[in-house]
Amino acid sequence: MGDVNGVGPEILAKALAREDMQACADYLVFGERAVLAQAAAVLGVALPALDDFAFGSTLRAGVVGISNAGKAAAAVQAGVLSAEAGACAHHWIGAATAAVALGDADALVTCPVNKEAMLLAGHGDLGHTELLSRLLNAPDWRMCLYTEGRLVVHLSGHLSLMDALRGITTESVCASVRVAHEALLRMGIAAPRIAVAGINPHAGEHGVIGHEDEALLVPAVAACVGEGIACTGPHSPDAVFRQLWQGQHDAVIAMYHDQGHIAMKMVAMDETASLTLGLPIVRTSPDHGTAFDIAWTGQADERSLCAAIKLAARLARPRQKESA
Amino acid sequence: MGDVNGVGPEILAKALAREDMQACADYLVFGERAVLAQAAAVLGVALPALDDFAFGSTLRAGVVGISNAGKAAAAVQAGVLSAEAGACAHHWIGAATAAVALGDADALVTCPVNKEAMLLAGHGDLGHTELLSRLLNAPDWRMCLYTEGRLVVHLSGHLSLMDALRGITTESVCASVRVAHEALLRMGIAAPRIAVAGINPHAGEHGVIGHEDEALLVPAVAACVGEGIACTGPHSPDAVFRQLWQGQHDAVIAMYHDQGHIAMKMVAMDETASLTLGLPIVRTSPDHGTAFDIAWTGQADERSLCAAIKLAARLARPRQKESA
Repeated sequence: MGDVNGVGPEILAKALAREDMQACADYLVFGERAVLAQAAAVLGVALPALDDFAFGSTLRAGVVGISNAGKAAAAVQAGVLSAEAGACAHHWIGAATAAVALGDADALVTCPVNKEAMLLAGHGDLGHTELLSRLLNAPDWRMCLYTEGRLVVHLSGHLSLMDALRGITTESVCASVRVAHEALLRMGIAAPRIAVAGINPHAGEHGVIGHEDEALLVPAVAACVGEGIACTGPHSPDAVFRQLWQGQHDAVIAMYHDQGHIAMKMVAMDETASLTLGLPIVRTSPDHGTAFDIAWTGQADERSLCAAIKLAARLARPRQKESA
Repeated sequence: MGDVNGVGPEILAKALAREDMQACADYLVFGERAVLAQAAAVLGVALPALDDFAFGSTLRAGVVGISNAGKAAAAVQAGVLSAEAGACAHHWIGAATAAVALGDADALVTCPVNKEAMLLAGHGDLGHTELLSRLLNAPDWRMCLYTEGRLVVHLSGHLSLMDALRGITTESVCASVRVAHEALLRMGIAAPRIAVAGINPHAGEHGVIGHEDEALLVPAVAACVGEGIACTGPHSPDAVFRQLWQGQHDAVIAMYHDQGHIAMKMVAMDETASLTLGLPIVRTSPDHGTAFDIAWTGQADERSLCAAIKLAARLARPRQKESA
């Protein structure tokens, strides 16, 4: 459900009310039942039947299981930064992650949290991914964006740009190429074409604009090609995302958060899902934040959450429904 | 004309052959007459009349003045990196710049050069802008992109990303806002709305993701507002360029080359012109390079050069033609 003071409950209610989304998966919601009902009332949408989820039981088609995992939310304060809301969101993410890791569900889809509220919750986690990484002992995760067959894998997430640049290594690029390759194979793409974006303008123009592309990326691409992956680059950053959009690549490895996010949000804001690779579970999310400025006004757009749910269903192959 | 081994001569011939471009301005070409004729022959286009330009004379409507300024080009070698071609391009840019600075023409439009060839020419200039900056004693230039009423001003040009980040200062941001404001006023926009992009993901989220946005950009925006400019930000980098595209801003100040270039090239590759602000002359160019891989095959697209010519005509107000 995410932060109850943001748009999470609204986009969740809108998504659950959609017939195509009901056909896509069976749902278990971690969050407050009364808040979900409140969102449905604000929006004037009809939810499927809700049922308090009994841990250890099986999800039922047509019925949305719901649980606050023993931590009840306070009353909604639309658009307010709140330590209490942050603490609830934190607890529910932990419970949901455990449920997926232990087999109660096949994939985790997270609604937006506020990073300041998460920090106020006092566990030191800046967001979902940091919490997931700690809980699942998976330090080498990758923040990704996915839209309509196009995958962008970012070397780093919510780091300052300077720290992100300092953290780029040949091995980190190779690991990113490998997780992209595995994910695309899992999605049914037979020979994924993976492009590595450059670090510097024009990918350094053979060392004329910075040395990092030659020193760090050229060996990474060579190593991945040596492993049999159809990997190319480094490509000019201001060209490679357009090439991805035009279908010349299946995935691009972005060197930092904004390199990929700026590109994808120019062309596909509403239908883009966020995806975390490198975790032992399937995890997706909408690619936007809590949007406190429009929370609880009914304006929030559920399409990115729906894209996240569809992507999760596609990646969670073992028990994926026929209709997904 | 740019590097004769690249696409410069072709896009120039295509543009000069277009009726709308002939109506837009009178032309003085710095480059080799035989090479321009060769490009027209390859393309099968009819050029306007060419006339060797006599320095000190006036440009004539319907006749394209042309001069190699005393340095003749060797035979074209399509797509070949050449010190000789770089040296010719370098000389012609210098001559053209002098012609504009001294009043023989109203604006400078440059065709693509190859950065490695320019360096081979031995003057130490990486590209047009570095040469212009030296020649015109204008160190505080800004590389910009312009498309259909939307301006992006970059704090830095062809620097490594690490050097670009290290060079960001409050004063540099203020200076960028001011040149954007002046340029937009000159283009007839009464109260330009100028957005400053953040440095870090989500513009730092109030210091949670890096301190640079708070330390450097918040004071810059406040100072510009204090000067009466409608300046806002820092905005999240992965949102502000989309807002520009949707018309919420007239200009965005981009913190580094790829921040603006990635965004604009996703949506407007063919109609985007490059523009250098902060020089004592009007200077524009297409936003692509020499494209050695397709040079002299007739495939090069002239639309970005045409956008650059139209923009130059619009900015060169004093003697702008009625039809421009």
